[in-house]
Amino acid sequence: MLLSLREAGGPLYRRVYLALKAKIRAGGLGPAARVPSTRALARDLGVSRNTVMLAYEQLAAEGYLVSRHRGATSVAGGAPPRPAPAPARPAVERPAPISAYARRLTARLDLRPSRPPGPRPALRYDFRYGRPAVDEFPREIWRRLLAAHARRASSDALGYGSPAGHGPMRAALSDPERIVVVNGTQQALDLIARVLLDPGDGAVVEEPHYPGATIPFEAVGARLLRVPVDADGLDPARLPPAVERPRLAYVTPCHQFPSGVIMPLGRRRALLQWASRVGAWVVEDDYVSEFRYEGHPLEALQSLDRDERAIYMGSFSKTLFPALRVGYLVLPRALVRPFLAAKWAADRFSAPLYQEALAELVTSGQFERYLRRAGARNAGRRRALIGALRESFGSRVEIAGENTGVHLVVWLNDVRPRELDALIARAARVGVGIYPVAPYYAEPTRCAGLLFGYAALTEEQIRAGVRRLAELL
Amino acid sequence: MLLSLREAGGPLYRRVYLALKAKIRAGGLGPAARVPSTRALARDLGVSRNTVMLAYEQLAAEGYLVSRHRGATSVAGGAPPRPAPAPARPAVERPAPISAYARRLTARLDLRPSRPPGPRPALRYDFRYGRPAVDEFPREIWRRLLAAHARRASSDALGYGSPAGHGPMRAALSDPERIVVVNGTQQALDLIARVLLDPGDGAVVEEPHYPGATIPFEAVGARLLRVPVDADGLDPARLPPAVERPRLAYVTPCHQFPSGVIMPLGRRRALLQWASRVGAWVVEDDYVSEFRYEGHPLEALQSLDRDERAIYMGSFSKTLFPALRVGYLVLPRALVRPFLAAKWAADRFSAPLYQEALAELVTSGQFERYLRRAGARNAGRRRALIGALRESFGSRVEIAGENTGVHLVVWLNDVRPRELDALIARAARVGVGIYPVAPYYAEPTRCAGLLFGYAALTEEQIRAGVRRLAELL
Repeated sequence: MLLSLREAGGPLYRRVYLALKAKIRAGGLGPAARVPSTRALARDLGVSRNTVMLAYEQLAAEGYLVSRHRGATSVAGGAPPRPAPAPARPAVERPAPISAYARRLTARLDLRPSRPPGPRPALRYDFRYGRPAVDEFPREIWRRLLAAHARRASSDALGYGSPAGHGPMRAALSDPERIVVVNGTQQALDLIARVLLDPGDGAVVEEPHYPGATIPFEAVGARLLRVPVDADGLDPARLPPAVERPRLAYVTPCHQFPSGVIMPLGRRRALLQWASRVGAWVVEDDYVSEFRYEGHPLEALQSLDRDERAIYMGSFSKTLFPALRVGYLVLPRALVRPFLAAKWAADRFSAPLYQEALAELVTSGQFERYLRRAGARNAGRRRALIGALRESFGSRVEIAGENTGVHLVVWLNDVRPRELDALIARAARVGVGIYPVAPYYAEPTRCAGLLFGYAALTEEQIRAGVRRLAELL
Repeated sequence: MLLSLREAGGPLYRRVYLALKAKIRAGGLGPAARVPSTRALARDLGVSRNTVMLAYEQLAAEGYLVSRHRGATSVAGGAPPRPAPAPARPAVERPAPISAYARRLTARLDLRPSRPPGPRPALRYDFRYGRPAVDEFPREIWRRLLAAHARRASSDALGYGSPAGHGPMRAALSDPERIVVVNGTQQALDLIARVLLDPGDGAVVEEPHYPGATIPFEAVGARLLRVPVDADGLDPARLPPAVERPRLAYVTPCHQFPSGVIMPLGRRRALLQWASRVGAWVVEDDYVSEFRYEGHPLEALQSLDRDERAIYMGSFSKTLFPALRVGYLVLPRALVRPFLAAKWAADRFSAPLYQEALAELVTSGQFERYLRRAGARNAGRRRALIGALRESFGSRVEIAGENTGVHLVVWLNDVRPRELDALIARAARVGVGIYPVAPYYAEPTRCAGLLFGYAALTEEQIRAGVRRLAELL
C-alpha cells in the first residue's frame, strides 16, 4: 500500500494514523477493503509493528477500521465516518470529550465493557502468569484472620483511615514513616507517574518491559527511554545522559520482567550513581524477590542508596494472591508528603481489613513460614517445568530467567513469531494455556517466545501440560 | 505588613508567596517574627483568605514559615533557607523533584507522615461527619458474608479481576455495562478529573464546595468556576457561558454538600440543558440520597438526561461505612472505555471480596431492610439534634440541610468566625467534638458555622452533647 508519512508531524504512530485516515477518507481504500497486516505495513514503512498497531487501534476506535477474524483488518463497511452534521443549536465549539491524558492512555490500552478480561475458557493446564496458587494458600488461616478483624472492627477501623495505610501494617513492613500502602503495584506505578513525571520528561524503562509501568508513564505524557536488558539486566553504560532529561528509571532488578535475569551488585551501584549524577529517581519494583532458588538475594537498591534517590515497591500479589490489592512504597523522605497527598486525592486510603489481617499474618510469623513452604514448592515446580521442557523439546527451546520468581521465558527456536497465534489457539483446544512474550517487547522478536507461569500448577500438571504441548509441535 | 504584589505575575497566591518570600530573604521579617494572621493579611491586600493560606502553606512547605500554637504563624527560626551550595559534581540542571501535578496538589493538601489523621482524642459526644454508625451496622451478617466468600474463593476470584468491577456487584446495582466500580467516591472524582479535565479547562463547582472534588480538579490544572448555592442548590442562571470553557459541572443535588439544600427538578433539567448547550459533562455525586426524611426522592440527573451527558457517582460510605472503600460510576456509553482504561492504569481493579459480600447483601434484600432501619434511626437522631439545638439555643442558631442525609449545618448567629477555634477547643475539653464548615467555603463566612454529623450518636448522646455545648456558649 502506498502511504506517505512525510507531511505529518508528531509521533510516528500518529503520522501513520493520519496518512491512513486521509487515504480512507479520500476513497483510496473503499469500504470492506482489507488493509495490510500490521507486520507487512510496518516492513513497508520501515517502522515498528507496535507503531502500526497503535495507528490501527486509533482508527478502529474512531470507526474507520474493523477487525476481522484471525487478526485481519478491513476498512469499515458503509460510508466512511463523516464529520457530524452542523448542530441545530447555536454553534458552540464542543470541547474534546476526553482529556489528553485519556487520549494517550486509550491509544495504548483499549478495554471494552463487552469483553471484560474475566474468567478464561476452561484450561486444564493453564500456564498463565500471575495465577495464584489457590490450593496451597493458607485459606483457613486467612479466613479466620479476616473474620476476627471484621468482628472486632471499631468505629475508627470502619471510618476514614490514614492515606499512609494501616499503622500496624506499616510497622510490620519496615520504617513506617516512609511507607505508603497502595492498592497493589499498579497504584504504586500510577502514583509514581503522576507525582514524578511531567509531559515531555524522560522515563527510563527496561527493554523488554512491563506494560503496567510503561502505560501510565506514557499516559502522563512522558517519553520512554528504553534501555536494553542483557544477561545482567539493564546495562548502566547505556543509560541516557542528563541532556535527555531522564526523571526516573524503573527497574526490576530482582528478576527482570519478563526476561528473568538478575541485576548484579555492581550494576545496582552504577545505576544509583547515574541517578545521582543526572538527578533522576530510581524505582525498584521488587515484585518477586521472596522466591529466589539459587544464590543469595542481593541487596535492594534502597539499601545501597546514599542519596535517597531510590523508591522501593513491594507487593503481595505474587506471594499471596493478586485480588488482595495490597502493595506498598518505601519512599525517600523528600517524597513522603507528595505521595501522601497523591494517595489521598486518588482514593483517600486503602481498605484496612486486608491490611489488618496481613499485619497479623506477618507479625505472627505465619507469613514467613508460608513463604518457606511456597518457596520450596515453587522450586519443585520450576524444576519440573525445566525438566519437562528439556525432555520434550531438547535444544529446540531456550529457557531464561530460571533462578527466581514464578515464571520462565521459553524461546521456541524453530517457531516464527507469526506462527505463534495459531499454536496458542491449538494448545487451548487441547486444554493448555500458553502466553506470548511479545506484549512485553517494543519491537518484534526474532523467534517466538512464551511466558510460562508455573506457581499455580502441580508438578504432575506441569509435566502433563508440556507433554500435550510437545504433541502439537 | 507592607507587601507589594505589583511586580510578580502568575496566580494571586503565588504573587503573595513570592512577595513574602522576598521580604523574608531580604531580612524584612527576621527569624521568629510573627506574620499577620491569614485573615488580616487577606484584608490588607484585598485578596481572599484562601489565597493567603495557600501562600503560607507553600512558604511553610519550603521551610520559611512555621506554625505556632492556635494557628499563629512565624518566620522559621535560624537563618532563612539559603540556595543550596554549588554541587561538587559536574554541574547538571537538576529537574524539579516533583511534577506540576504534585506541586499543585501539595499546595492545597499538606499531609505529614508524623501526624496521620488517625484516631482523634477520645470524645464522648463526637459530631464528626462521616463517622459510621458502628453499633447499628449488621456486623454479624457482614462478618458471615465475608467469611463465606473468603472460604469459597476460587482461583479466578483470587486472581486478576476486571477493571469494571465484580460482575454480580455491577448487575446488582444497575446497567452493568455502564458501571465501573471504584474505591469510594474519591477515586471516582480522581478518575473524572484525569479523564475529563486538561490543564486550563473550566470545572464548575458549587460554592460552598466539597474539597474532595475541588482538590483533584485543581491538581490536574483545571480552573474552578464557582457557582453559588442558594436555597434550591446551584443556580443554573449563574452557570458560566461556553466561552469560559466549562468542561464539567460537579454537583450534589440530593443534599448539597455541605449546605444540605436539595435541587428541585426544574433546576436539574436546566443544568442538563446548559451542559448540552456548552458541551460539558454533569457529574452527580449522589452520596446520601438513600436517607431522605421529608418529601419524595427526586429523579437522578442521569434519569433526566437525554444527551448522555450525566455521570452518576454512588457510594456505600454513608449507608454502610467508609472503610469499605466501594463506590461506583454509572457512565455515559461514550465514556465507558476511557474510564475502564483509567481504572486499569490507576490500580487494575478493586479488591473483589467486599464487592462479593455487598452483591449478596443487596440481592438478598438485606441491604434494603438495613437501609429502612437506618433511615428510621437517622430520622430520630435528626429530630433529636434539631430539638436539642432549638431548646438550648433558640433563635441564636440557624439550622440548614435538615431534609436528607446524615449531617446538618448550624450557624451560630452570635459567634464570630474567628472565635470558633477557641470554642472548638473548649468543647473538646468537655468531650464534645464539633467541626467548622469553613473548610468548605472559598471565602470567609459572616458568622461561625458548624457541621454536625449525627448518624453515629444515639438520641441520648445527641441531647447530652448539645447540653454540654450550650453550657459553654
